[in-house]
Amino acid sequence: MAKTYKIAVIPGDGIGKEVTPWAQKALEKAAEGVADFEYEHFDLGAERYLRDGAILPEEEEERIKANDAILLGAVGDPRIKAGILERGLLLKLRFDLDQYVNLRPSKLYKGVTSPLANPGDIDFVVVREGTEGLYCGAGGAVRRGTPNEVATEVSINTAYGVERVVRYAFKLAMKRKKHVTLVHKKNVLVNAGDMWQRIVNKVAEEYPEVSHDYLHIDATTIFLVSDPSRFDVILTDNLFGDIITDEAGAVVGGVGYSASGCINASDEYPSMFEPIHGSAPDIAGQNKANPTAAILSAAMLLEHLGFDDAAKRIHKAVEADIEELGSTVRSTDQVGQDILNRM
Amino acid sequence: MAKTYKIAVIPGDGIGKEVTPWAQKALEKAAEGVADFEYEHFDLGAERYLRDGAILPEEEEERIKANDAILLGAVGDPRIKAGILERGLLLKLRFDLDQYVNLRPSKLYKGVTSPLANPGDIDFVVVREGTEGLYCGAGGAVRRGTPNEVATEVSINTAYGVERVVRYAFKLAMKRKKHVTLVHKKNVLVNAGDMWQRIVNKVAEEYPEVSHDYLHIDATTIFLVSDPSRFDVILTDNLFGDIITDEAGAVVGGVGYSASGCINASDEYPSMFEPIHGSAPDIAGQNKANPTAAILSAAMLLEHLGFDDAAKRIHKAVEADIEELGSTVRSTDQVGQDILNRM
Ligand SMILES: CC(C)[C@H](C(=O)O)[C@@H](O)C(=O)O
Ligand SMILES: CC(C)[C@H](C(=O)O)[C@@H](O)C(=O)O
Repeated sequence: MAKTYKIAVIPGDGIGKEVTPWAQKALEKAAEGVADFEYEHFDLGAERYLRDGAILPEEEEERIKANDAILLGAVGDPRIKAGILERGLLLKLRFDLDQYVNLRPSKLYKGVTSPLANPGDIDFVVVREGTEGLYCGAGGAVRRGTPNEVATEVSINTAYGVERVVRYAFKLAMKRKKHVTLVHKKNVLVNAGDMWQRIVNKVAEEYPEVSHDYLHIDATTIFLVSDPSRFDVILTDNLFGDIITDEAGAVVGGVGYSASGCINASDEYPSMFEPIHGSAPDIAGQNKANPTAAILSAAMLLEHLGFDDAAKRIHKAVEADIEELGSTVRSTDQVGQDILNRM
Repeated sequence: MAKTYKIAVIPGDGIGKEVTPWAQKALEKAAEGVADFEYEHFDLGAERYLRDGAILPEEEEERIKANDAILLGAVGDPRIKAGILERGLLLKLRFDLDQYVNLRPSKLYKGVTSPLANPGDIDFVVVREGTEGLYCGAGGAVRRGTPNEVATEVSINTAYGVERVVRYAFKLAMKRKKHVTLVHKKNVLVNAGDMWQRIVNKVAEEYPEVSHDYLHIDATTIFLVSDPSRFDVILTDNLFGDIITDEAGAVVGGVGYSASGCINASDEYPSMFEPIHGSAPDIAGQNKANPTAAILSAAMLLEHLGFDDAAKRIHKAVEADIEELGSTVRSTDQVGQDILNRM
């Protein structure tokens, strides 16, 4: 008998609510016969916050933790001051659940039009640190609102936190083209950058087959446009990872095709899978959003639980769908159904 | 009689030494009859550092300060640990000379091939704050080299520092298409982001003709690829400005066409003009580097000193050169001479 996995579902805001049901459907269909899923829905996000002020109540967070994995849609709403939901819900989960690997593959699918004239064969993965750096929330302001205001943001980086994500990147590179590119800004952020580089050099010694190089974040944004096929595994910190994965999403034809996993690689807490796109309030509720990224995040969830064949089923269906129909205008439900029909 | 201006010249490292002489020649030719220049050369950069350990001796910095403007080539050398020259020379000048506006225009010239399939009409300028943020050098490390190392980087932002650059951006927008886009990451960096947004809102009230909007840095990297012609004036902090101007350089066909001004808009100290490209050690000494960005930085210097017509002479010659010969392979000296011949 197939084992049953408990999945926490947090559709969140805007188009998150429209694409997440398709991720669930893809999950079930792909794993038919090998795994069953039991869903626990969490009403978290803008609507809930506006209704009763709750962002992520402790009791609900404990229930989320008791699941085997999390499917998340998107978080963010223009009616709510920037940062409240992002830091109180999305980042709080990433931090509290110690999801230290934020895994973001970028692939240019056949049938997708890249904005680049000569995109080449794009297929890399960004390993973004998920629990440190400028995302710690360590900062403050004095004399707020006066001409003498000073606002700070502190990037905290630990050898412990960096080493575990560096190891993950090198291990991943062994399964790929065996090349790791560290991205940082070590000519300016000399303390953090130097530590990242030293730890990469040390871990690299254990992986003699994996080559590695270094690029400044600014140079990286150039290569992502001028020569994106040069990359295999990009390893970087929380903020730089945020920035380049959006640019990477653009060069592979839009963030509508980019999924991500917030992974607790020690399996102490559940990992969380989400499209990298946001809640897109401008098209929310119109059955317009592309559910492909959400469906691909279900494939990442399956891989994470060890169901590689089921994940491949999703990948194949998505690839075939995009190749044949990628350039046609379809509704959310139509794309979702088309992909499901191919599985 | 034409007034004589004193120009400090710091060719620096690598291709900086090859392109800077062309910036000087363009300066002279463009300003013939309206301004004369007297140059003071400074031997600063990698060679000097390796020779006698000096990076920016106080006495030399004082002499630099006594000039009317500075022409800089590029700083950085692979033989020297990242950060030493960048922070000790380039950033030290930007900070000590209070060059709080780092002005970086991006324009797609006719005749240049953008890596984008449909670049559209790209013509915007990034106003990057130059004396604050993560570039302050406020950070450190404890237990360096041990498994318990903690490295921090602190972004310091002041209302004083932000307001002056915000004002510059709105004033500049009045001379352009009257639109300012604030770029930050206020959903995560809530202290600094909130301060930037409040100050933008306040200053905007004094410029009712200028519209303004906000974009997260990650979303900005998408639009720079998918719709770069939407921008007019981009206003952002030191690090985000560093990142997006390189990406912008890529979409307009390479950083070989991008100049920048590190401007002390209060004229208390000289402003500094430099190409945005680096020292490019891989092609240094081969007469291969494109001097166009350096020549365009001479045009920015002329504009700064009030010689708009002379600056236009450079712009026209560069535009004509690129339109006719932009796609041919030429040496540094040939491009420089071709542009000069057109002036
Ligand atoms: C919504 C925001 C806090 C988040 C981030 O910055 O990590 C998003 O941009 C992402 O990349 O998942
Ligand atoms: C060399 C480096 C310190 C510098 C910066 O980060 O500002 C450069 O990238 C630039 O953009 O001028």
